[in-house]
Amino acid sequence: MNQHTVKSYGDELNQLTAIVARMGGLAEAQVADAIESVARRDVALARAVVERDARLDTLHSDIEKKAIRLIALRQPVASDLRKTLSAMKLAVDLERTGDLARNISKRALILADGEPMLPLTRSIERMGKLVSNRLRDVLDAYTASDVDRAMGVWTSDDEVDEHYNSLFRELLTYMMGDPRTITACTHLLFMAKNLERIGDHATNIAETIHYEITGGDMIGERPRWTPTPSDSDVMAVDDPLRPQES
Amino acid sequence: MNQHTVKSYGDELNQLTAIVARMGGLAEAQVADAIESVARRDVALARAVVERDARLDTLHSDIEKKAIRLIALRQPVASDLRKTLSAMKLAVDLERTGDLARNISKRALILADGEPMLPLTRSIERMGKLVSNRLRDVLDAYTASDVDRAMGVWTSDDEVDEHYNSLFRELLTYMMGDPRTITACTHLLFMAKNLERIGDHATNIAETIHYEITGGDMIGERPRWTPTPSDSDVMAVDDPLRPQES
Repeated sequence: MNQHTVKSYGDELNQLTAIVARMGGLAEAQVADAIESVARRDVALARAVVERDARLDTLHSDIEKKAIRLIALRQPVASDLRKTLSAMKLAVDLERTGDLARNISKRALILADGEPMLPLTRSIERMGKLVSNRLRDVLDAYTASDVDRAMGVWTSDDEVDEHYNSLFRELLTYMMGDPRTITACTHLLFMAKNLERIGDHATNIAETIHYEITGGDMIGERPRWTPTPSDSDVMAVDDPLRPQES
Repeated sequence: MNQHTVKSYGDELNQLTAIVARMGGLAEAQVADAIESVARRDVALARAVVERDARLDTLHSDIEKKAIRLIALRQPVASDLRKTLSAMKLAVDLERTGDLARNISKRALILADGEPMLPLTRSIERMGKLVSNRLRDVLDAYTASDVDRAMGVWTSDDEVDEHYNSLFRELLTYMMGDPRTITACTHLLFMAKNLERIGDHATNIAETIHYEITGGDMIGERPRWTPTPSDSDVMAVDDPLRPQES
């Protein structure tokens, strides 16, 4: 603790919230840039996303240290305690979101060396936009302390799953039709999965906002991704030449 | 708080640690069973893993509520506070580990309908055993409060990555050689990725144990999975008939 000025309790709490908001802004930008780096095959942008990820790790660590210090020295209760614990939770989700964005850009770097696969990267871009918007909405809900808006994100989780499932089918059809695309398609498959996971983190963030504001349960029963039935439909299509019924 | 007996502070803290240990035991069993369900194509076992996952969610929620209550009412400091915060962190990692085991078993159910792919499921089993052992070791370190043992798990993260990368190549070779296996192989690919993630959670748990015991940094600089160079090696092999240099 080598601080020159002594901060008040309220200041410390506000500072914590401000760092979370800043981390949110950075994570949002990282996800948007990661998707752009895939869509435009932009090697420089992909590299920038990979490098910038360390910033989110630092902020995560900073939030965790400040929150633990606050709990230990200020012993917050009620809504102040919820605010502090929520900051720790949100930092975890935002840090993981950043990791996933970085992984997408790492794969974008690899794909940039190969043939462009336009229809597929456009589908990734579409799914990416959807996930980006969810993340933006839930972070808006955080800064506005708007529990209804957060719950709006929470309840619209299905859309991402639908996109993921249709992208999964599309990729399989592509691989079956042209085995030379298999390695590239597996990278796209993991990108789609990473985007789906970013959507899950947006859902987690919505739950944390709900807890912070209402004090209600932090862990809800929410729909989770399941490989059936659409994956098993796909499993039935094991003839690469059979046309797909979408 | 509808408790009939009033617990002491020490009791509450011990209870929290006991629930974490129990959750660890369950998560360890879920991972081992998930791998077994793949290896033996055991539909009943796979279903059991999927159903039992709710138990881990309940324990996670239980730990979180108890920890928050403890922080709010008992205002722990120093090592007691670390113990409480660690319990919350560990519960998150164990709950996610359970989710990943459940996902593996969901995919095992789908694969059980198709052709057996023995060499591949054996590779999954081998990687699974390695990851299981890491999880067991780190949970042993937790119950024994053995920071050296936890750090042993932390530093051996590379092994899992090596297994994952070699399994990834094996799966690609298989898909390229016989496009009819593509859908099944993508399920195996995600299983391998899920196992790799379980390995990451074991690493997180090691970090949390280190923090709990020493008070040192919770977030370390550790090697993270990266798709290069082995994935890009694989990318170069886009001719399905070209023999693979392993």
